[in-house]
Amino acid sequence: MPLDNYWQKEEIMPRRELEELQLKRLKWVVNHAYRNVAFYKRRLKELGVHPSDIKKLEDVKKLPFTTKEDFASNYPFGLFAVPLSEVVRIHTSSGTTGKPKVVGYTRNDLENWTNLVARCLYMVGVRKDDVFQNMVNYSLFTGGLGFHYAAERIGATTIPAGVGNTRRQLELMMDLGTTAIHCTPSYALRIKEVSEEWGLNFEGSRLRIGCFGAEPWSENLRKRLEEFFGIKAFDSYGLSEMNGPGVAFECEEQNGLHIWIDHYLVEIVDEEGNPVGEGEKGELVLTALTKEAMPILRYRTGDITFLIDEKCSCGRTHPKIARISGRVDDMVVVKGVNVYPSQVEHSLMKIPEVCGEFQIVVDRKTLDNVTVRVEVPEDKVNSEKLKAKIEEILKSDLGVRVNVELVKKGELERTGGKAKRVVDLRKNS
Amino acid sequence: MPLDNYWQKEEIMPRRELEELQLKRLKWVVNHAYRNVAFYKRRLKELGVHPSDIKKLEDVKKLPFTTKEDFASNYPFGLFAVPLSEVVRIHTSSGTTGKPKVVGYTRNDLENWTNLVARCLYMVGVRKDDVFQNMVNYSLFTGGLGFHYAAERIGATTIPAGVGNTRRQLELMMDLGTTAIHCTPSYALRIKEVSEEWGLNFEGSRLRIGCFGAEPWSENLRKRLEEFFGIKAFDSYGLSEMNGPGVAFECEEQNGLHIWIDHYLVEIVDEEGNPVGEGEKGELVLTALTKEAMPILRYRTGDITFLIDEKCSCGRTHPKIARISGRVDDMVVVKGVNVYPSQVEHSLMKIPEVCGEFQIVVDRKTLDNVTVRVEVPEDKVNSEKLKAKIEEILKSDLGVRVNVELVKKGELERTGGKAKRVVDLRKNS
Repeated sequence: MPLDNYWQKEEIMPRRELEELQLKRLKWVVNHAYRNVAFYKRRLKELGVHPSDIKKLEDVKKLPFTTKEDFASNYPFGLFAVPLSEVVRIHTSSGTTGKPKVVGYTRNDLENWTNLVARCLYMVGVRKDDVFQNMVNYSLFTGGLGFHYAAERIGATTIPAGVGNTRRQLELMMDLGTTAIHCTPSYALRIKEVSEEWGLNFEGSRLRIGCFGAEPWSENLRKRLEEFFGIKAFDSYGLSEMNGPGVAFECEEQNGLHIWIDHYLVEIVDEEGNPVGEGEKGELVLTALTKEAMPILRYRTGDITFLIDEKCSCGRTHPKIARISGRVDDMVVVKGVNVYPSQVEHSLMKIPEVCGEFQIVVDRKTLDNVTVRVEVPEDKVNSEKLKAKIEEILKSDLGVRVNVELVKKGELERTGGKAKRVVDLRKNS
Repeated sequence: MPLDNYWQKEEIMPRRELEELQLKRLKWVVNHAYRNVAFYKRRLKELGVHPSDIKKLEDVKKLPFTTKEDFASNYPFGLFAVPLSEVVRIHTSSGTTGKPKVVGYTRNDLENWTNLVARCLYMVGVRKDDVFQNMVNYSLFTGGLGFHYAAERIGATTIPAGVGNTRRQLELMMDLGTTAIHCTPSYALRIKEVSEEWGLNFEGSRLRIGCFGAEPWSENLRKRLEEFFGIKAFDSYGLSEMNGPGVAFECEEQNGLHIWIDHYLVEIVDEEGNPVGEGEKGELVLTALTKEAMPILRYRTGDITFLIDEKCSCGRTHPKIARISGRVDDMVVVKGVNVYPSQVEHSLMKIPEVCGEFQIVVDRKTLDNVTVRVEVPEDKVNSEKLKAKIEEILKSDLGVRVNVELVKKGELERTGGKAKRVVDLRKNS
């Protein structure tokens, strides 16, 4: 493979060399965390583990997990391993409940992060001739600046479009000849909706690449977006605790997301934190191998996926994770069956009358009373036939019966950012 | 002076050397514009001017002016001098009426811009130990990313806070130990207001530097903000047509803004475009001397100021401009007298009962019917005495009588960004 196809040579490093690099970095990061973060020193001591006990990659299992609660109890700077004078950037989570998660970056961290996202964009074909419109929230959300720095580094004409004002976004896309976009999949649906209202189509537009992330989405939504925009659509995965975007990304194969294991050590665990069997579904656990400002050991991401470790035709030697099927905390249990919003989306997208927006409402009356509210065109809202059809498809796909409520197109809330797919009425009372 | 006090050696370059550099760059940019921008080639030819006619700095007067209408008629890329593949960033103006202004940057342009803003921040004392909270709109507005890149370059802990959610901003300031902030002066007033509602004060806070820009403000507002926040407050000037912020900035003297003449050639002109007398007020006209992607000749900024060309105790050899008294298009003529919002603000800030927000309403009934709406605490709204006091002070300061209407605190719109100070009811009908 010519190196021209890759942003960094590490992308095609033989697996054995990658593992040597991982081990070297794992030793470094455990030592760094132990020496410079009081929280980790205490945790390791409690477990009777010393950095010198890390002799092979499997020894990662000796280390303690880190959870989002650990971020809360160490707010704001308890997980920082360097003085603030070495920290050049801070991001925070939205912190809708309680204090936000605070994450910090040294100059080297930003450099690594930028290159990791640049790998992803370069992998799907973004080059200096491209016009890249970045339609996510800038400021504290890592998705904005993360992609911005990477696209600019590649040399693409980067438009920091931000989120909202969808007509304005469309005007920019058309007038500036945008070739690649980045946004949440639900915002892409919103753009589609506004285009349709406006009578705008993308035939003859220069658009060819769509990067969609920050929330789980489905294969059938991909098909809809690809068809409407005339693009190839790629799934993006990341989280601010691990820098931000650039943790994993689909290649041209569109069959799983390459996860950059020279920077992130991957485990998949069950509810008790034990490793699942090969190829089995579980919670993704990540150890940041190179983060200086905030070394994070065995972070429980809450994201459900499984590992695909096969040779990929793109030539990259990094394993893949399957697209995230949901978050641990977004899973709804219906009559004992686990249901994720992305499964519901996948099923709904098979039905042409369904506009795209939906919500899963969990009611307090009985734990199993789950209703899926689905947007359809106004003249279909009272169609018993359509309602029955959707219920049937959902029952067949999910393996459990849920109620369906048809609502008029435009009735459900649009956020511009991550969509709110599960509404738990039990929590509000 | 030790070089430690300056970000770049050009800041203290002897004036003669600066002028030599200006001339060299002026020749370059005129040539660049002539060869690579069809618009400028046509304009210069119409005037019978050839780049080789630029032999000394005064020859700038031979060149055509550029106006905001020229941006509109060349939308989107007509003023670009390099192919899009060399453009790594695009910003646009808000474009509330019609198409936005589009500005582009090469990698060198971003590098120059970052260093120019870094000069400003470094000049007022921002260092790597500082925590810099950037509370302006990111994305398309140049104020966000412009300051962000510069603060990060200096190595300050940069918080891309963005705009809005004022309580959250205050929480970040307190929890993260913010030492320096950047926002519009009207947003600073908003933060003050919310702090007061919240019973929060800044005694004992680490905050010490405030950078305020993107709209004209007054000396008396500076006093209020300095006192409330316990900071030194500095005026920032820039415009996206000239990269963005980083065109001019106050030094510790707080007496005029050093304008970086190695990158921007300065003229002050009257309404007809003729030079004003030494030290006289007029419209600022700027020629970008180093911009590759978009060389802009003699741009009529619409901003009113005058030149202060005296030796400065800070050691910088660049002349100063006086704080912007207003925009050509924000000037209100009352009975033949020119009134700028910043003058009104300055007068209002003398009166302790005045909360800070105000609006100048121009009515259609007679051209001279101008009302200043002023926010005061609820229990003062009906005070004839206060109304008379404000009218008297305004009359004495402005030299003309205007009507005053007292409105309840909180009644006028807060934007988070640039405040809307002049409401022209004639335009809406």
